[in-house]
Amino acid sequence: MAKKINKIAVLTSGGDAPGMNAAIRAVVRSCSYYNMECVGVYRGYQGLIDKDFEDLTARSVRNIINKGGTFLKSSRSEEFKTKEGRAKAHKNLIDAGVDALVVIGGDGTFTGGLYFNKEFNFPIVGIPATIDNDINGTDYTLGYDTALNTVVEAIDKIRDTASSHNRLFLIEVMGRDAGDIALNSGIGAGAEEVLLPEEDQGIQRMMDSLEKSKKSGKTSSIIVVAEGEKSGKNIFQLAEFISQSHKEYDIRVSVLGHIQRGGSPSCFDRVLASKLGVGAVEALTDGKTNIMVGVDRQKVVHVPLETALKEDREFDQELRRVANITSV
Amino acid sequence: MAKKINKIAVLTSGGDAPGMNAAIRAVVRSCSYYNMECVGVYRGYQGLIDKDFEDLTARSVRNIINKGGTFLKSSRSEEFKTKEGRAKAHKNLIDAGVDALVVIGGDGTFTGGLYFNKEFNFPIVGIPATIDNDINGTDYTLGYDTALNTVVEAIDKIRDTASSHNRLFLIEVMGRDAGDIALNSGIGAGAEEVLLPEEDQGIQRMMDSLEKSKKSGKTSSIIVVAEGEKSGKNIFQLAEFISQSHKEYDIRVSVLGHIQRGGSPSCFDRVLASKLGVGAVEALTDGKTNIMVGVDRQKVVHVPLETALKEDREFDQELRRVANITSV
Amino acid sequence: MAKKINKIAVLTSGGDAPGMNAAIRAVVRSCSYYNMECVGVYRGYQGLIDKDFEDLTARSVRNIINKGGTFLKSSRSEEFKTKEGRAKAHKNLIDAGVDALVVIGGDGTFTGGLYFNKEFNFPIVGIPATIDNDINGTDYTLGYDTALNTVVEAIDKIRDTASSHNRLFLIEVMGRDAGDIALNSGIGAGAEEVLLPEEDQGIQRMMDSLEKSKKSGKTSSIIVVAEGEKSGKNIFQLAEFISQSHKEYDIRVSVLGHIQRGGSPSCFDRVLASKLGVGAVEALTDGKTNIMVGVDRQKVVHVPLETALKEDREFDQELRRVANITSV
Amino acid sequence: MAKKINKIAVLTSGGDAPGMNAAIRAVVRSCSYYNMECVGVYRGYQGLIDKDFEDLTARSVRNIINKGGTFLKSSRSEEFKTKEGRAKAHKNLIDAGVDALVVIGGDGTFTGGLYFNKEFNFPIVGIPATIDNDINGTDYTLGYDTALNTVVEAIDKIRDTASSHNRLFLIEVMGRDAGDIALNSGIGAGAEEVLLPEEDQGIQRMMDSLEKSKKSGKTSSIIVVAEGEKSGKNIFQLAEFISQSHKEYDIRVSVLGHIQRGGSPSCFDRVLASKLGVGAVEALTDGKTNIMVGVDRQKVVHVPLETALKEDREFDQELRRVANITSV
Repeated sequence: MAKKINKIAVLTSGGDAPGMNAAIRAVVRSCSYYNMECVGVYRGYQGLIDKDFEDLTARSVRNIINKGGTFLKSSRSEEFKTKEGRAKAHKNLIDAGVDALVVIGGDGTFTGGLYFNKEFNFPIVGIPATIDNDINGTDYTLGYDTALNTVVEAIDKIRDTASSHNRLFLIEVMGRDAGDIALNSGIGAGAEEVLLPEEDQGIQRMMDSLEKSKKSGKTSSIIVVAEGEKSGKNIFQLAEFISQSHKEYDIRVSVLGHIQRGGSPSCFDRVLASKLGVGAVEALTDGKTNIMVGVDRQKVVHVPLETALKEDREFDQELRRVANITSV
Repeated sequence: MAKKINKIAVLTSGGDAPGMNAAIRAVVRSCSYYNMECVGVYRGYQGLIDKDFEDLTARSVRNIINKGGTFLKSSRSEEFKTKEGRAKAHKNLIDAGVDALVVIGGDGTFTGGLYFNKEFNFPIVGIPATIDNDINGTDYTLGYDTALNTVVEAIDKIRDTASSHNRLFLIEVMGRDAGDIALNSGIGAGAEEVLLPEEDQGIQRMMDSLEKSKKSGKTSSIIVVAEGEKSGKNIFQLAEFISQSHKEYDIRVSVLGHIQRGGSPSCFDRVLASKLGVGAVEALTDGKTNIMVGVDRQKVVHVPLETALKEDREFDQELRRVANITSV
Repeated sequence: MAKKINKIAVLTSGGDAPGMNAAIRAVVRSCSYYNMECVGVYRGYQGLIDKDFEDLTARSVRNIINKGGTFLKSSRSEEFKTKEGRAKAHKNLIDAGVDALVVIGGDGTFTGGLYFNKEFNFPIVGIPATIDNDINGTDYTLGYDTALNTVVEAIDKIRDTASSHNRLFLIEVMGRDAGDIALNSGIGAGAEEVLLPEEDQGIQRMMDSLEKSKKSGKTSSIIVVAEGEKSGKNIFQLAEFISQSHKEYDIRVSVLGHIQRGGSPSCFDRVLASKLGVGAVEALTDGKTNIMVGVDRQKVVHVPLETALKEDREFDQELRRVANITSV
Repeated sequence: MAKKINKIAVLTSGGDAPGMNAAIRAVVRSCSYYNMECVGVYRGYQGLIDKDFEDLTARSVRNIINKGGTFLKSSRSEEFKTKEGRAKAHKNLIDAGVDALVVIGGDGTFTGGLYFNKEFNFPIVGIPATIDNDINGTDYTLGYDTALNTVVEAIDKIRDTASSHNRLFLIEVMGRDAGDIALNSGIGAGAEEVLLPEEDQGIQRMMDSLEKSKKSGKTSSIIVVAEGEKSGKNIFQLAEFISQSHKEYDIRVSVLGHIQRGGSPSCFDRVLASKLGVGAVEALTDGKTNIMVGVDRQKVVHVPLETALKEDREFDQELRRVANITSV
């Protein structure tokens, strides 16, 4: 039988995402609600090794639900990739009387958690938090909805200039392996085309689309480009490439960059973080481990970490079709 | 066999909601994509009667995806509730060569559509658009996600003052029959309590919660109150009622009102509108009628209008629990 | 000769305003820059009496420049209006080794400061912070610019609904004695009319304007109403009054309320707060007292507190004219 | 005596700026108020040559006050730099019965206007609109206040990540010749350092500041860099340069780019645009020409175009000092 949980540690790791603070808050308050103690670990897995701990109460997490970033800070720890590092981390948790760990982050975070669990059989539950939405087994990851709003608001601003000047803008958004941000923000911002990591023929489609626009007399255009699209060209080379056959456009490039990771979380992300934080603590008190809490149809579900890490998310062909039709 | 559709009319009716313009745009562009004509009807069902029509092309709906409200305008038509009114509307559609109708709105809109279809066997598909999210058979209605963001941003601002002055704020949000806005924005804004139309004992729970806060020394508080909550008191009477037993608070009331209906739609609502607009046109070309297009797990589904109008949506007890735990 | 200043106390008092935190930060960092100590006083003048002090360093005020409200909290102290209260406050300051006081707030705050200085000859400098902009001798008060943005963003949202439904909206904004918010936000939001505390004939002008609109076939309208306008009717009575002669409109009322006080300060308010915070500390080290630091043409100026409190601000007739012309 | 003005043309030229639409609206409505006609010219000076004109009435400019960009579109016209081009433009204006021209833009726009006036003695008034605020003789140019808000909101988001990860961010903002955006947004966003076009020793100051931060244990940092700063390095080279002596930081670069030009104008810019639009028309009816309307202490002033174009704006040393002190 699983040991009774009296004390839970929580950490954030990997790239920060809006909603991480809201998730920490929900973990802490759930502990308080169920009369358990909660320990915040600073700087992710590195903080486990350095014993950078702080006791957290329901009041410690007041007024953070609407803050971007993570007050526990995050990091990528090389030391935690070593056996010695993990052993040190484990000892610190045991010394502090911690019975279980909630890790908030993306695939790197979950991989670290899996290793740790396998070595020490230490109860671990993950909360998916990454703006890229590239985790298997959950409809949404924390921060993704907020990032989409940030991106469409930025493109709305750029469109003001595009329309005023008859320009073509190439706008780079985050997404190395997953085109979710590019595809959704492209539809949401009314982009004429979208280049995605999941498609090989994107550049050909884009050129066709520009040819069509030329004929129909369109004078301004927005093309959303995911970081990881497959043309083999960077965004400045893409601009150069287009300019060779489209002298009619004044072409500009905008790389949205780090603004996409920050900002006050949307209501959607705050509610999701609250659900998942509560769900993570309840999963642990239920004796679960090595799972991620995700959402399926707005309900909390338990997904084995191995499943969450599988790289076989299906590309949403339906949504691609919607993009094609609405940009006609 | 269903008659081939060559021309579709689209209208918005009832209270406006962010995303209506994006939905109109998707309907128009889908018609264009499938080589059909599209007619915009101004002022909802009244515009059908007055033949207030305008031909719309893919270019007519440029640069509206990010605008709140509805450029086709909306209204509540008394005349359409009469047999004569509807007969006139039908004649106008036939005269204009329209084969099918997309109606964007809430339950009143769908009821009107059902009547119309029954009398004239005229193909109708509905798109759910109402900030209240009170339509059966779809996970989300258009405008709801945007309204939630508007509400939490407003409460974030009010919390600045609440915290600075040790005040208790009662904040009224929309929701006559459905507590979705109140419950989600309450969680999202970190409210201490939420009063909902779906609960009878809300006021008792609130008083208990305030009593607990008093003991724990909390000095400021936010309580979110749905318009339709069941205490039998309006929000000013509620404030008076609380003040009798809680002299420690300086109590203030804020009625958020109409700002909740407007604003540029969130990315979520823009993508949803695009999906549903495409889905509505494709349903019609597929020979469907008397259905609403909704989303279930992000996929477009067809729901009979009668089902959409049923008042048996289940109250989300799980989410209520999350509210209780995270406000501990 | 004025005594050398080694330690400065800072407090916020009266209604909170965006930019107060930025001003506190600038005061604290100026003290640090000039090698002086700084003490934060919680809850305004009441905190002086209760000796609710905290030493502040340059690092204590990290990451607050963008937060609304005031982390030192504010209050209205009845005790400070008594001789005994003020004597206690003075003793506490002396005991803590404080040499001078910066008070951030509006007219009530400055009046309190004047009294205190007269009794104890204690050096005091005021920083004007109130969203109403109703302080003499400075072009702008802290929080006013942010409040204007909050108001126009809210009205932009309401206009979405007004336009969609052919409605007339009466929107109440803050301003008991000063119409600055109403007049500027009215122009900025493109309101058809504005009712101000500074004008007696506002209601007549409004009725004329509505009559004209009726004739020109305008179908939606926004009227901005300052709290302190002179019709003798509250906003609901105004709506009733208009409805009697304008059946063509569906009239709605929106009271913006407390959202106007909160929110992250605009860049303008953050820069203004930084200037005034530095200016206040430098005024004190320069031997100045009983003055307010204000801005005239973007430069910091010193204004005697008595002058700041005079109620003879001129009404901006030019701006009124601009409102009339642009709403034609 | 100046000829009576019956018809005014208005155009926007050069880079677009938030508030241009609000200024066009004010020009059009002022014409209407004074019973004159108004003609909108599309695509700036090129539209004069191409006779791309549209009659505008008070109703044509409804619902544009809150829109970014310019609905009249803008361009940079090579043809207008030729004598032939300008002659064609003049003929078109005369043929259309236009008596005077309002040009909205920056220095390039004003230079074009001056040439045109000198050749044809055609009445011209300029309205300063550029986010850079680099026009002489006016306290503010249109779009500058909005751009500052856009920049600080973007940096607020980036700071979430900087704080979460202990990173140093170099953020490039617009400003080739003028550091107004960089200096004000740097203060407003709480940047640790600011690199400006007006200072030669910026890079040395920055290195000193980073050295100090290192000693004081600061772990995250924001440095705002104006496009036109004087180090001779681009922002990526700057990052490389810093990284050589500051291994303690994970350094990132963000180029804010075109989002700075767009967006709904702030209330400040909307009111300013309304004042200047009215002022421009009244200046013309008053017989003025070859002037820019600007603001001095919130009042409209007339500035000869030659003066507006002088490159002798004083650098605000006082504000530089405020930046140094508040970033201590």
